[in-house]
Amino acid sequence: MIGVIAVLKVAEGKNAEFEAIFTDLAKQVRANEPGNLAYQLTKSRTDPQTYKVLELYKDQDSLTAHGGTDYFKAAGAKMGPCMGGRPEIEYLDGV
Amino acid sequence: MIGVIAVLKVAEGKNAEFEAIFTDLAKQVRANEPGNLAYQLTKSRTDPQTYKVLELYKDQDSLTAHGGTDYFKAAGAKMGPCMGGRPEIEYLDGV
Repeated sequence: MIGVIAVLKVAEGKNAEFEAIFTDLAKQVRANEPGNLAYQLTKSRTDPQTYKVLELYKDQDSLTAHGGTDYFKAAGAKMGPCMGGRPEIEYLDGV
Repeated sequence: MIGVIAVLKVAEGKNAEFEAIFTDLAKQVRANEPGNLAYQLTKSRTDPQTYKVLELYKDQDSLTAHGGTDYFKAAGAKMGPCMGGRPEIEYLDGV
């Protein structure tokens, strides 16, 4: 099991557009990736421009496959103009 | 949907004991709480004393119920002597 916490900073005025792109991506991830066990977008309660994605994968192969999908790459390109900073991605080992 | 990221600092020499208590707790959470959607212990790749728990709940009622269970309270008491600092708990709103 591998966990991922992705911290995403969204530009002001871009929240709705970002959320629409990301929730569409999340639907595709959950529908198409048997090795993905959770892929949930959440929003900070203290900073309206900060989102955190909680992700769980069965193993490294599942995580690698996720990053290689066409829909993930397409969503990344669409989200680019919505972002207010570089994402911070932390990888964690399941216990 | 509510997300929780719990950052837990474990005292040196207490990792195995902590992991045993926590993974037993996680089994009880997943078996008994229909409103809990994920409860995964993970370990930092950069600091061997830092763990992060990725949690997802259907709603606030589910999260409140989780905190009120006897097994959660019992595990908290058992884990106490394993901890190397205060836990940091972040609550996040699902999008």
